[in-house]
Amino acid sequence: MKTIILAGGSGSRLWPLSRTNYPKQFLKLSGMDKSIFQLTMERVMLLGAIEDIYIVTNEGYRFLIAGQIEELGYAAIAENILLEPESKNTLPAIYYGVKAISAAPGGRGEVVGVFASDHLIGGSEAFAAQVLAGIPLTDEYLLTFGVEPTAPETGYGYIKPGKALRGGRAVSEFKEKPDLQTAERYLKEGYYWNSGMFMFRADLFTEEVKRLAPGVFAAFEAPDVKTAFAEAPNISIDYGVMEKSSRVAMIPLSIKWNDLGSFSTFYEQYETKMDERGNIIIDEDDTIMLESQNSMVYTEGKKAVAVIGADNLVVVDQKDALLICDRSKTQAVKDVVDILRARKDHRAHFHLTEYRPWGSFTILETGGFYKIKRLTILPGRMLSYQMHYHRSEHWVAVSGTGILVLDGDETVFTAGENVFIPAGRKHRLKNPGKLLLEVIEVQSGAYLGEDDIVRYEDEYDRIED
Amino acid sequence: MKTIILAGGSGSRLWPLSRTNYPKQFLKLSGMDKSIFQLTMERVMLLGAIEDIYIVTNEGYRFLIAGQIEELGYAAIAENILLEPESKNTLPAIYYGVKAISAAPGGRGEVVGVFASDHLIGGSEAFAAQVLAGIPLTDEYLLTFGVEPTAPETGYGYIKPGKALRGGRAVSEFKEKPDLQTAERYLKEGYYWNSGMFMFRADLFTEEVKRLAPGVFAAFEAPDVKTAFAEAPNISIDYGVMEKSSRVAMIPLSIKWNDLGSFSTFYEQYETKMDERGNIIIDEDDTIMLESQNSMVYTEGKKAVAVIGADNLVVVDQKDALLICDRSKTQAVKDVVDILRARKDHRAHFHLTEYRPWGSFTILETGGFYKIKRLTILPGRMLSYQMHYHRSEHWVAVSGTGILVLDGDETVFTAGENVFIPAGRKHRLKNPGKLLLEVIEVQSGAYLGEDDIVRYEDEYDRIED
Repeated sequence: MKTIILAGGSGSRLWPLSRTNYPKQFLKLSGMDKSIFQLTMERVMLLGAIEDIYIVTNEGYRFLIAGQIEELGYAAIAENILLEPESKNTLPAIYYGVKAISAAPGGRGEVVGVFASDHLIGGSEAFAAQVLAGIPLTDEYLLTFGVEPTAPETGYGYIKPGKALRGGRAVSEFKEKPDLQTAERYLKEGYYWNSGMFMFRADLFTEEVKRLAPGVFAAFEAPDVKTAFAEAPNISIDYGVMEKSSRVAMIPLSIKWNDLGSFSTFYEQYETKMDERGNIIIDEDDTIMLESQNSMVYTEGKKAVAVIGADNLVVVDQKDALLICDRSKTQAVKDVVDILRARKDHRAHFHLTEYRPWGSFTILETGGFYKIKRLTILPGRMLSYQMHYHRSEHWVAVSGTGILVLDGDETVFTAGENVFIPAGRKHRLKNPGKLLLEVIEVQSGAYLGEDDIVRYEDEYDRIED
Repeated sequence: MKTIILAGGSGSRLWPLSRTNYPKQFLKLSGMDKSIFQLTMERVMLLGAIEDIYIVTNEGYRFLIAGQIEELGYAAIAENILLEPESKNTLPAIYYGVKAISAAPGGRGEVVGVFASDHLIGGSEAFAAQVLAGIPLTDEYLLTFGVEPTAPETGYGYIKPGKALRGGRAVSEFKEKPDLQTAERYLKEGYYWNSGMFMFRADLFTEEVKRLAPGVFAAFEAPDVKTAFAEAPNISIDYGVMEKSSRVAMIPLSIKWNDLGSFSTFYEQYETKMDERGNIIIDEDDTIMLESQNSMVYTEGKKAVAVIGADNLVVVDQKDALLICDRSKTQAVKDVVDILRARKDHRAHFHLTEYRPWGSFTILETGGFYKIKRLTILPGRMLSYQMHYHRSEHWVAVSGTGILVLDGDETVFTAGENVFIPAGRKHRLKNPGKLLLEVIEVQSGAYLGEDDIVRYEDEYDRIED
C-alpha cells in the first residue's frame, strides 16, 4: 500500500514548544530520541517501503523533512516530498498526494493510508496490523479510523458506529467536539474518537472528490500545482468528503493514541511521570514544586524553577518564551499565538534555535551592535560560501574540527582556535569530520539582519533566496 | 544625630530577584533608578551628614555598599562601613554600630537612629520630620517606630500603644504576626505596625543592653570584633531589649511603608500599575495575560510571557530562575531557597550577573569546554592584572574604548576589535574613558572555574583572595 503523511501543520496549540517555522511534528519531546514526525515515519514504514510514502507539507519544512528522514538513516526521496504552495486545509493536501500516487503505472488502484505527522501512537506493530486488516474493506468503502476511547475527552470529535461490516463498522454519524457530559454519554454508548486517519483506494477516493467536492477536483485539473492550490477551496476531508459520502466505513483501532492537540492532552501523554498529587515534572533536577497538584512543569532544564501552590497549571518554560496556563483553558494558547502574530513578534514563528540544511544556529545574546550565536555544523555539511557587507564575525571553535575557507585559502579550524572575519571577506566553514563542529560566533556591526548575506556557492541551492 | 543602617540581610523571601550574594536591598526594582539601599541612604541623609551614617553589613557586601554609595555621588567612608564577621541577628549588629559611635569623643551622648536598608518608604521629608520630632523623648526612652496601618496585614508584627507621651506613645505590648481576623481587630483598635526602626541615645541603649542582654554586652568587651561576634548570642533587638525594657516608647509614623518581606507585600508595592482585574504586569510589552486576575508577572523583559487563567499568582521570571507562587503562599519562597542551598545550587546565592569592584560580568552561556561572558567595566576602573593556567580567553569589544595590557604591552582596544589571550599570558583590561566598556569574553579550556586566576596587581586588594 501507499501512504500519505500530512506534515504541513503549524501547531500553534503547543506554543511555545511549537513555533510556525518548527512545529510540533518536528520536535523531539522530552524522553524521546526521535521527533513525532520521525516516529510517524517509522510506524508507517511497517505498512510499506519508504518509496511508498508520500509526505505533503509546505515549502518551509522541506529541509526539516529531508534532514529528519536522513537522521533516521534513509535517503530522502525528493519526488515523494510534495510541497503545498499554500495551505488549503486537508482535502486539497490529501488529494494532491492521491493525484501523485495515481499518476504512477497502476496507481489508480492503489490502497492509500493517510496519517497525521503529529500524533503519538503507542504500539506500532499493533497499529500496523489493525490498519492492514482493514484493506479488504477498501474495495467498497472510504475508511476512517476510530480509536477506542479511554476517557471522556472533550478535545476530540467522535464517531457513532453503525452496523458491523467485515472487520469494520458502518459510520452512523460524525460528532463535533462535545462538552464533558456529552462526552461521558458517548463513552458509555460505545462511540469512537475520530482520529483524522484514513484509508481508501485512490480511484474510489477520486470518484468521491469529483462527486462531493467538485471545486477541489476541478482545481487539480490545472496544469500546475500552484494554480491548483490557488483555485482549490479551503476545505477539510471530513467536511468535504467523509461526512457527505455514503461509502464511508470505520475501522476501530485499539491503540494508545494522542493527537497532542492541546497542553491538556499533552499533560496526559506524560501520565507515567505523574506523582501521587497529579504533578508532572519534566527535567526534575532543576524544578521544585511545593503545595501543588495536577500541574505540569516542562522546562528545557538548566533553570531553577520553583512552583508553589499551583493547582491544575501547565508551565512551559523556554529561554525566550514562557507559558503558564490553567489546564482547563489550554484552547486559549492559540489566541496567544494570534496576538503574537498580530504584533509581528518573531517568537510566534521562530525558536532561538533555527535549523538550516547544514545544521543549526542558536542566538545566545543580542546587544546594540553585536549578536552572539552558537553554530552547530553537521558532519559532512558546510555553510554557503558567503560575505556580509555590514558585520564582522568572530569565530571560536569550541568542539570538533572543521575547514575554514577565507578568501579562497583553506585552513584547519579546530576546538580552541579562533578567527576574525572582517566585513567584506568571503568565508565558509566546512565540517568534513565525523563529529559535530560547534562554533561560537560574535557578530559586530551596525546592521545584523540575517539578510545581510551574499552567497557565492551553496550546496543547498539558496543562492537566489 | 547618628544613624545605623542595617544592610546585612540576605533576603531569601524575594528569591529569585534577591540572591544571597546580591540581596534585595541592593536591587534596583523595575521603575526605580536607585536601589532600595540607595533610597535608604538618601532618606537617612536628611537626618544628618554622610559622616554620621554607619552601615553594618557583612564582608560579602563591602564592594556593593561602596559601589552603590559612589554611584550616588559620594565617597564611601571605609571606617563607617562596619563588617560583621558572622551574622548574629540584629542586636549584636546594632550594638556593634553603637559601640563604634560611642567610641568617638562625645559619642556616648549621641542620639542614634537605626534603620533597615531594605524597606521602601514613601515621602522622605515627612519621614525625616517625624523621626526628628521624636528626639526629645530619647532622653528618657528607647524609641521604636510604629507605622499607622492601612490594611490588616498578617505579615507584620504589631504594637499596642499605651498612654500618650510628649510626641509619642507608651508601648503597651508587642504582638507577633497575627492571623487575618486578629489583624482586623488590631486595625480597628488602633494598633501600629512594628517597623523594625529604632532611635535612642547611645548611653541609654548601652545601659539596657548591659542590664537585659548581658551576653551581648560581655561579648563586645572582647578586644576584637571577630571574638565579639563569635561569643555573642544570636538574638534580635526586639527579643533582647525592646520587649524586655520598661524604658521603651513608640513614635507613630504616618507614612507609606513596605518592608518587602514577601511577594505578597511586593505585589502591593506596585498597586499603581494594577489593572481593573487586579493584574500587575512589569515589562508589559512582552507579557500577555488572558482570563486572569489578582496576579503579577515580573520579568526582565525580552521574553514572550503568556499567562492564561491565573488567579492570585505571582510570577517572577529571570534567565536562570523562575518562581510561580500563589499569593497566599509566598512565605514558602524561603523554603525554596533552603532547598536550593541544601542542594548547593548556586542560584540560591548568585545572579547570572555578578558585581565586582570594576563593574560586572554576566554569564551568557556555558558549554562543555567553553563559557561566554559579557564584561562591563566602569569608567575609570580596571580588572586585576591576571593570568589563567587552564583557559584561553577571547575578547571582542562591543562598546566603549579601553586599554588592553598583554604581557606588559599596552594597546588601545575599542568597539569592534578583538584579541586572543592564550592560557599563561598576563593580561588586564582598563577603562580610562568616560563610557562603559563592554566586552564579550569567550573562554575555552578544560577547566573554567572562577578560581583559576593568578593576580599580579589589583586595585581592590584581592591578591590574597
